[in-house]
Amino acid sequence: MAKNSALIEPRLPRGFVDSEPADLAAIEQMVAKIRHVYERYGFDPIQTPFFEYTEALGKFLPDTDRPNAGVFSVQDDDDQWMSLRYDLTAPLARYFAQNYQDLPKPFRSYRQGWVFRNEKPGPGRFRQFMQFDADTVGAGGPESDAEMCMMMADTMDALGLQGKYVVRVNNRKVLDGVMQAIGVTDEAQKLTVLRAIDKLDKFGFGGVRLLLGPGRRDESGDFTEGAGLTEHGIDTIQRLVTFAAMENLNDPSSVARLAGYDVIVRDNATYDEGIAELRAMAGLFDSAGYGPDRIKIDPSVVRGLEYYTGPVFEIELTFTVQNEKGQDVVFGSVGGGGRYDGLVSRFRNEHTPATGFSIGVSRLASALKLTGNLDAAPVTGPVVVTVMEKDRIADYQKMVADLRADGIRAELFLGSSKNMGKQMKYADKRNAPAVIIQGSDEREQGVVQIKDLAEGAEAAASITDNAAWKTERPGQYSVPRDQMVDFVKQIPAVAAWMKANG
Amino acid sequence: MAKNSALIEPRLPRGFVDSEPADLAAIEQMVAKIRHVYERYGFDPIQTPFFEYTEALGKFLPDTDRPNAGVFSVQDDDDQWMSLRYDLTAPLARYFAQNYQDLPKPFRSYRQGWVFRNEKPGPGRFRQFMQFDADTVGAGGPESDAEMCMMMADTMDALGLQGKYVVRVNNRKVLDGVMQAIGVTDEAQKLTVLRAIDKLDKFGFGGVRLLLGPGRRDESGDFTEGAGLTEHGIDTIQRLVTFAAMENLNDPSSVARLAGYDVIVRDNATYDEGIAELRAMAGLFDSAGYGPDRIKIDPSVVRGLEYYTGPVFEIELTFTVQNEKGQDVVFGSVGGGGRYDGLVSRFRNEHTPATGFSIGVSRLASALKLTGNLDAAPVTGPVVVTVMEKDRIADYQKMVADLRADGIRAELFLGSSKNMGKQMKYADKRNAPAVIIQGSDEREQGVVQIKDLAEGAEAAASITDNAAWKTERPGQYSVPRDQMVDFVKQIPAVAAWMKANG
Repeated sequence: MAKNSALIEPRLPRGFVDSEPADLAAIEQMVAKIRHVYERYGFDPIQTPFFEYTEALGKFLPDTDRPNAGVFSVQDDDDQWMSLRYDLTAPLARYFAQNYQDLPKPFRSYRQGWVFRNEKPGPGRFRQFMQFDADTVGAGGPESDAEMCMMMADTMDALGLQGKYVVRVNNRKVLDGVMQAIGVTDEAQKLTVLRAIDKLDKFGFGGVRLLLGPGRRDESGDFTEGAGLTEHGIDTIQRLVTFAAMENLNDPSSVARLAGYDVIVRDNATYDEGIAELRAMAGLFDSAGYGPDRIKIDPSVVRGLEYYTGPVFEIELTFTVQNEKGQDVVFGSVGGGGRYDGLVSRFRNEHTPATGFSIGVSRLASALKLTGNLDAAPVTGPVVVTVMEKDRIADYQKMVADLRADGIRAELFLGSSKNMGKQMKYADKRNAPAVIIQGSDEREQGVVQIKDLAEGAEAAASITDNAAWKTERPGQYSVPRDQMVDFVKQIPAVAAWMKANG
Repeated sequence: MAKNSALIEPRLPRGFVDSEPADLAAIEQMVAKIRHVYERYGFDPIQTPFFEYTEALGKFLPDTDRPNAGVFSVQDDDDQWMSLRYDLTAPLARYFAQNYQDLPKPFRSYRQGWVFRNEKPGPGRFRQFMQFDADTVGAGGPESDAEMCMMMADTMDALGLQGKYVVRVNNRKVLDGVMQAIGVTDEAQKLTVLRAIDKLDKFGFGGVRLLLGPGRRDESGDFTEGAGLTEHGIDTIQRLVTFAAMENLNDPSSVARLAGYDVIVRDNATYDEGIAELRAMAGLFDSAGYGPDRIKIDPSVVRGLEYYTGPVFEIELTFTVQNEKGQDVVFGSVGGGGRYDGLVSRFRNEHTPATGFSIGVSRLASALKLTGNLDAAPVTGPVVVTVMEKDRIADYQKMVADLRADGIRAELFLGSSKNMGKQMKYADKRNAPAVIIQGSDEREQGVVQIKDLAEGAEAAASITDNAAWKTERPGQYSVPRDQMVDFVKQIPAVAAWMKANG
């Protein structure tokens, strides 16, 4: 009992998970396709470390009002605070500023990596998760934002999601101009308005109107403070946000009508700039052949991060899934981004425009599993050489070495029990394509028994007669020892593994 | 000035570094080769998160005497301490114990990942670095240790290091038995003896004798306390450690002589067990054809980690490099491991044997660069489409889209200055294989200018006559717009990139 109580419980802190071979293979396959698109677009990988000085990360953490809350921080031995990165954009800004002299400008990079949030974990909400970002720093024109949107669309196509996504595009200046026009100037109130608009998918316009106005009480009785807008203010925002439903804003002349939509806003420079940028992007989408089925201009897109200064975009997966309550809901966002012209200037005293986006890797992988675009098949295991005579380990080891030397995935059974049933069960659990057996009889005859496990399993499903099974021994072959390697190579699952792993 | 002083300096905490595209490509290429060997050996990848509960990691951090010093720790909101992993072995023990019911046993896994040490950084010594481990948990026989050594050797071969490495193998029980025999029982004294032996490469036997005896004062005057052994004790250890130099211990009969080498130790069960395990491993190396040029039994191998309980092994790169002082020294260890039968039993009240090893990824990459086995060539950049007429961005964007659609790496120049010299300089910095130019003349003729930059650079080296240069315009072609894609595909650097990135 004393010994038992000293045992440590094997468990992980909440919000952290392990990954299994099949998950890793699926993610790898997905990431390779994403990388291929990004590299074709001229982006190169860089990698920054997990820690940054806390002051370098800044106060841009999404979904929190407390500055520097939500990050993991430690104090260095010189008393300076450093934090684990919470996204891949803040470290890029630091990297660009630090390596300014040596970098090509504009600087295109992609970064794949883990980020950390010191927040309350929940279902599908982790404290360590992977992002995959692409950014162009030092390019201010709408063609660089348009390129980001096209790359997002091409990435979704490369992953097999044709017809199942839309990249939605808006411009913060449009929203900012409208807010100016209706008299919202307080930063906190602006944030409340943006958050309210962002809830359109979730609450519909009824709920959003409450959040823009007096506030909203949910089913559980919790009350969310509203932005306190007037009826006119709420109407103006509703008109803007629903404009996309009425008109195809990808048609540049239609965006022009949005500009002239003077019920919303008149003679506001910020608004006009935003509209002009949207028009330029709409023109580029049009001439490059990206229709509104793939990239859609939509004034309801907000994106949470406070640092966006111009175009914002979001990849929405449009197919429906069931939520926890069994209701059909659209799968929703798997990533997004926008222009953030202010981030680098925290380090360098000059205007440095930048644009980019981030994909949530795990969330996208979940989506691809649902659509059948991600191979979640178990990994093909090794050929297992069993141990029949304990004093002949060296011989069995030699068989394994021979198989491996020819490129076959193979291993010796290393468990302490040499019971045949246990070894077969192990091979099964490993998803082994074949098992090699050599007891004393086979040794005397100079042969090995080779069991093709897939063939055996298939036969087992069709042969019902026990006697027939024993006579035919389907999938089981007696092969001269010196022909073992060549025989094993012909087994379909072995050949498939070798082909895939060159 | 006020604005300047508010700027944040872009820099990283000490001991953390960024990685550039060429580094990442080199590491990726190396890791792919390592993985291929591990997978052929039947190992599958798993991934554990960066944080573990501090108690789960234990006090096994190498190179520190202070328990839990040297790790980065934070307190969770329920006041429990969690730490960033300092190696990939402690998390594996936790993972195995936690998933015991579902895992195949023995459990073979490999893990590639970043680990963290909260220690004083120095040259080549980082606070975040990558390890690549393989382990078999639940296998107690010497065949599983022997397999690890063979896999280490095969990995070095796969990386092109034939003849430049040796996997050195020892057994802790041999050292433990000798220490028992000469009366070293105190744990601290044992550790001092092991550390002294571990310094053989560095100080030779003169220095090691001092460290085993009264202590050693270095050139700077710093004194290192010795283990305080008697002359007899020091002689005994010297004999054991130098035995390998006199005899080929890979020959099993020679190991037997080591067993009978009763000047060292007589009738000590621990020592005898260690020798028996070494003999068994020597037999397996012999029958599998791994000679002492690849795997060498050597009683001077210690390995620092306290948790090893039996065989220990180390990959040593044997070629020489110059140290900071300009002296020739062997490159030395790039990884190692051993048997650690006690690690899982911290979580599970039963004996769980385990063996494995770890490779230091950055250190191995440095070695491969020195031997020319790692391609450190700059990454091939994209074809750059230049912007000549600012109002025709959509046309240029379309050229880029056409190139990309055929699988060519291409991009639009996105900088704000459309100066031709700047755009060419950018293309050069990106290592672009070609540049596309279409000004008003070319537009009217329906052509594009294509510059093959490699061809141009080559010609520039041979043509010295300025006039001839202007007439011939080497590497520069005028091509109809609708033949642009086909022409670009023929450029050797473009074709090479497309082949490599299928």
